[in-house]
Amino acid sequence: MLQKTPTKGMRDFLPGEFSIRKQVLESIIATYEKHGFLQIETPAVENLQLLNSKQGGDNEKLIYKILKRGEKFEEAIENGGELCDLGLRYDLTVPLARFYSNNRGKLPAVFKAIQTDYVWRADRPQRGRYRQFRQCDMDIIGDGSTLAEIELITATADALYQLGFDDTVIRVSDRRLLSAIANKCQFDQEDHEKVFIILDKLDKIGIKGVLEEISAFAPDKAESFVNLLMEITASSDPLNKTFEALGDYLDEKTKASLTEILSVCKTTTKAQVVFDVKLVRGMNYYTGTIYEISLSGLDISVAGGGRYDQLIGKISGTPAPACGFSIGFERIVLLLTERKYKFAQKEKTALVFSGSNDLADIMKVAQHLREKTDVCVVKRAKNFAYQVQQLKEEGFSTIYRYENQQLVKID
Amino acid sequence: MLQKTPTKGMRDFLPGEFSIRKQVLESIIATYEKHGFLQIETPAVENLQLLNSKQGGDNEKLIYKILKRGEKFEEAIENGGELCDLGLRYDLTVPLARFYSNNRGKLPAVFKAIQTDYVWRADRPQRGRYRQFRQCDMDIIGDGSTLAEIELITATADALYQLGFDDTVIRVSDRRLLSAIANKCQFDQEDHEKVFIILDKLDKIGIKGVLEEISAFAPDKAESFVNLLMEITASSDPLNKTFEALGDYLDEKTKASLTEILSVCKTTTKAQVVFDVKLVRGMNYYTGTIYEISLSGLDISVAGGGRYDQLIGKISGTPAPACGFSIGFERIVLLLTERKYKFAQKEKTALVFSGSNDLADIMKVAQHLREKTDVCVVKRAKNFAYQVQQLKEEGFSTIYRYENQQLVKID
Repeated sequence: MLQKTPTKGMRDFLPGEFSIRKQVLESIIATYEKHGFLQIETPAVENLQLLNSKQGGDNEKLIYKILKRGEKFEEAIENGGELCDLGLRYDLTVPLARFYSNNRGKLPAVFKAIQTDYVWRADRPQRGRYRQFRQCDMDIIGDGSTLAEIELITATADALYQLGFDDTVIRVSDRRLLSAIANKCQFDQEDHEKVFIILDKLDKIGIKGVLEEISAFAPDKAESFVNLLMEITASSDPLNKTFEALGDYLDEKTKASLTEILSVCKTTTKAQVVFDVKLVRGMNYYTGTIYEISLSGLDISVAGGGRYDQLIGKISGTPAPACGFSIGFERIVLLLTERKYKFAQKEKTALVFSGSNDLADIMKVAQHLREKTDVCVVKRAKNFAYQVQQLKEEGFSTIYRYENQQLVKID
Repeated sequence: MLQKTPTKGMRDFLPGEFSIRKQVLESIIATYEKHGFLQIETPAVENLQLLNSKQGGDNEKLIYKILKRGEKFEEAIENGGELCDLGLRYDLTVPLARFYSNNRGKLPAVFKAIQTDYVWRADRPQRGRYRQFRQCDMDIIGDGSTLAEIELITATADALYQLGFDDTVIRVSDRRLLSAIANKCQFDQEDHEKVFIILDKLDKIGIKGVLEEISAFAPDKAESFVNLLMEITASSDPLNKTFEALGDYLDEKTKASLTEILSVCKTTTKAQVVFDVKLVRGMNYYTGTIYEISLSGLDISVAGGGRYDQLIGKISGTPAPACGFSIGFERIVLLLTERKYKFAQKEKTALVFSGSNDLADIMKVAQHLREKTDVCVVKRAKNFAYQVQQLKEEGFSTIYRYENQQLVKID
């Protein structure tokens, strides 16, 4: 006998679960399309060279690697070379950058992409975190202006609103602003990334933890960094407080971009839109604006993204400005289920027949009923009353009995 | 710079290609649902123990295997053990059997499943054959009667008919009938599988090739086997000719089942339904009826399946009768494209604005237009006439220009 359960961290979806997931997915895609985005698709498997190109932060450690085959494998074993040259994608952004590099000539000058596919990460499974999970990404490639961020934030907020999330908070910041803070606090350039990674853990380790961890390698700078953060977050106008505090460390372009994105998105979304100096976002590829959506009162991020103007150039040699926003599909489904969201139930009819009937005759009756609704042909069980009850529980809104060439509707 | 093309044998799908594939998929699913089937899903990754359980025939040689990680990997290296314990599924039937074993208590007594997912095979890529490709499977588990085969054949024929294939031929046979032929020709039991594998290559190697290959190990039986086949196929009533020729070698149940399936399906489908003694089907798991759909005049199979009553018992210890039918999605898409099938074009509007506009204002106009249609916001290019032409080519049926707070429709 073999193991019946799915492999660790992965899931089977029963018809009821599948139907819920499909409805959520279709709703998100419909909203994205309304905002002028187009669906595309890339394969689940990519070359490891691409996946391991140091864009994915810690996620690169979680890649499922695929064993080489045939001669390539034997060669690798003989020469002690790499055993794998392919892997499962850990996100949809790195494959999108490859896709764009590959198909640039066939795409509009400003390309607005939708991807709603699975990604795989060999992460430690825990509640709501899986090893195969779906992401719903929108990306705009070829637009370096703030219009891109504004469209992405507007469309993502709209997608969540259409699913009944009327309590979202959109937090916005900019990687360049984080760099300006690090510069102002006199951190060595090589320590910047380390500082951001620690700041990113603020939720988990608290401000004291941040202070301690940074003190470990930059004891003279840690306190001024933490003080600056606390000063900004305590302010009634944190954005202008930040601009003031950073002075010339922050360029005018970043200031103007952040100001415009925040002010326009306040008019285009029904969500609360705030500047959040503590926002970091884990991926290495971000270069400018970064943003996240969470639910008011809950410390749960449901969507995140940012600008990554360098990634496409790194892959193809020809740069293109780009930014994206990704909805955490699995979390959204979990929240909707918890919130008892009203999912639609499809009309279904059961046609119960007894053994004495000719199958050609039954199939003809079923075919006739199918002109109007989905029909499942079912053999009559011995305990008919119990069978009818079961069929109702399975979601059949209409049940017919067919016997002696008579079609009778069961109440 | 990194490789821009997808990994060998796999594909990127541009928006136009994606839209075609989505329409085909949605049409197939809608027909399957009309026939009372329900969508489910299993993960792409399964335990290698399941995938390598000798059910998949030659496909087991084509499995993409996933490298073990962490301690498990180090242990394998140290002890010279297996490097992999997971793999990508090569079909949807073996995972379905595991799914059913795992979830049996939560499913209807007769479970009618739809799966329309990707599978992976490290096959030699060639025209129309890919290493990641989609299959559209229907399966009925828990029904050992011919109703299951009849429903599957009816629904699959309907799905193809809905896509405009009005020239399909459904070929039906039975594995038990093949066994009876092998017995009648006195082949050793252990040679049966070999004989069937050779017969399965008839299209490629011709009847002479079959004779030669079988003669290599059973020279005294090869001729009578080939003669019997030729006699049957030359007959005007091959089914009854077969029954006559096989006499007691074939049991009454198999005869009745084949006769009923053929006669009922002639009334439930618009396709040509024929008995084909030469039909084999590659998978090891088939135990009874087998069937294939091809297009009249073309030697291309577009769907295939059969009964596999042993598979679930092998996985879970508790047997259940089962049969399935799988549409070769990639081939269908290719044929529809070649046949210039009329795919729907979605209504799309472009809203072109010039730089002088306030973004909040533009977004408000876009939001208003979105109440009726999908809207893409586009910055005005220097050469506006060329831009309009490009937008039309990209499929925008309506184009507006927004300037000085005026919305003007472009013809």
